[in-house]
Amino acid sequence: MKIAFDIMGGDFAPAEALKGVQLFFDENQDQTVHLLLIGTPETHADCDKLLEPYKGRYTYIEAPQVIGMHEHPTKALKEKQQSSIAIGFGLMQAKKADAFIGAGNTGAMMVGAMYTVKNIPGVQRPTIASPVPRTDKKFNLLLDVGINADCKAENLVQFAILGSKYMQHVFGVENPKVGLLNIGEEEGKGNLLALAAFPLLKENKDINFVGNVEGRDLFTTKADVIVCEGFVGNVVLKMTESLYQLLIEERKLEDEFLDTFNHEIYGGTPILGINDTVIIGHGVAHALAFKNMIDVARKNIKVDLPGKLKSYFAPSEEA
Amino acid sequence: MKIAFDIMGGDFAPAEALKGVQLFFDENQDQTVHLLLIGTPETHADCDKLLEPYKGRYTYIEAPQVIGMHEHPTKALKEKQQSSIAIGFGLMQAKKADAFIGAGNTGAMMVGAMYTVKNIPGVQRPTIASPVPRTDKKFNLLLDVGINADCKAENLVQFAILGSKYMQHVFGVENPKVGLLNIGEEEGKGNLLALAAFPLLKENKDINFVGNVEGRDLFTTKADVIVCEGFVGNVVLKMTESLYQLLIEERKLEDEFLDTFNHEIYGGTPILGINDTVIIGHGVAHALAFKNMIDVARKNIKVDLPGKLKSYFAPSEEA
Repeated sequence: MKIAFDIMGGDFAPAEALKGVQLFFDENQDQTVHLLLIGTPETHADCDKLLEPYKGRYTYIEAPQVIGMHEHPTKALKEKQQSSIAIGFGLMQAKKADAFIGAGNTGAMMVGAMYTVKNIPGVQRPTIASPVPRTDKKFNLLLDVGINADCKAENLVQFAILGSKYMQHVFGVENPKVGLLNIGEEEGKGNLLALAAFPLLKENKDINFVGNVEGRDLFTTKADVIVCEGFVGNVVLKMTESLYQLLIEERKLEDEFLDTFNHEIYGGTPILGINDTVIIGHGVAHALAFKNMIDVARKNIKVDLPGKLKSYFAPSEEA
Repeated sequence: MKIAFDIMGGDFAPAEALKGVQLFFDENQDQTVHLLLIGTPETHADCDKLLEPYKGRYTYIEAPQVIGMHEHPTKALKEKQQSSIAIGFGLMQAKKADAFIGAGNTGAMMVGAMYTVKNIPGVQRPTIASPVPRTDKKFNLLLDVGINADCKAENLVQFAILGSKYMQHVFGVENPKVGLLNIGEEEGKGNLLALAAFPLLKENKDINFVGNVEGRDLFTTKADVIVCEGFVGNVVLKMTESLYQLLIEERKLEDEFLDTFNHEIYGGTPILGINDTVIIGHGVAHALAFKNMIDVARKNIKVDLPGKLKSYFAPSEEA
């Protein structure tokens, strides 16, 4: 399998991205994984030097341009066709890569995914999902976490399906429990969206709906997949991430559970509902996050998650 | 001033409620505060025994009925007119109490407030606000935290005004900074509601609007008052409360900042935008919370917050 990797993306790229690649090769002996590292010509020599022991496991692709973290996504993608992000999506479009990953400009990664990789037919809104730590050392999958700020009830049902299949196939969670993020335990509680979504989730035979999940249940094992509108999901996600910074990094608390609030452990955020695997890293990703991002991409490809999603949402097109 | 207190409300009532009263009398020597303790006839003797040293600082009012935590609010209020909650609101209506507080059935407290105390004319939606701990040992006020699950932009502007006046008058925060809970830093980010609310907040001369506040800023000093729809506010609040339980109570971490996640410190949740002071306690309130609830009610009355809100929202009616 070929995984394209924008090594220029992220606040600490390319140094941390390359260290992440090194870590991945160190830990993973699977020779079928070939990385396509996309970086500036200036980084080429450093890369080859660092990865000398792993020759043959990667190809360096020179990208003369880089899209900055704060550039306008659509404009930048159009004007910088030789940027690492544009080249990455070019490889996807030409079927020369099975996945594209990177921690660069999130908007540009999203726009690129939507316009080149595109939705699976039948998926109304692709979504981004994020792991949320929980007390049993596993994690819950929360989605959407930001690209769909306003949602319809039908979108939440699709998120439930996308999230369930991701947890089942990529992380081996059998029959994942789906919860609806809400402000009360009982059916009949909630805002208009939650009230409309509850019966649709309840009657859907393809998911294991367990009912409402409240703010206090986010870190528990009440559900494996938690669906919500992107607005609230994003607030929850950033709040969770800030706790790691506040409590572990600043206040130096020592606690195994709080350690799992480190987003680097989880790698990146998959875009679910598109035709191929694209994973967006956190802007502040370090080597550990990059290594895990590569590994999550590898798992997605290995189980052919996009293929499985396509057979579910667009079975006729598959046949 | 007279503060009516439903000592039968809450999972640990009346024992913890009475201990809270005792604590309050111990710590507060202000003889102008007279408590109207509303409880069952069976509790009367225990109360008088416990509060023997404080004779004259309270009056016991017997309520033969109690509304359970899970009863239907409107139905229960109608059918149990001799319940502690119904009697409390009766005292408010008859102007025999300046405030009513309790940790009983939240719905019944809300319904009672809406139907007997009623909105200040000009306030579209009364709101409930909750303190959120922050790193400098003060707190941010988050509102709405649950009674207005779906909001319009104009509601958020009123929440900003109500929250600012509460923080200014009751907690002495000069010119409180108001933030809009959102999913990005810049204007132009957000869901439809946030996009509509931002310009209204920005142009309002009666508040000190500082822009968007993200999930990661909730525990920081970026704002003093954070406005949001009740749905997301409730999720944030319950998540915050669960951290205290998970990290301090269960995992026994020791940390001064995390200690401030204990909701008992803050007493209760004021209903803002109604004609008098009503404070709702947390169902699991203990003595400390009850003591603080009485104290917050005292402060509200002392500065005449309801009067100040009325002169702002309905100046003509005042004149």
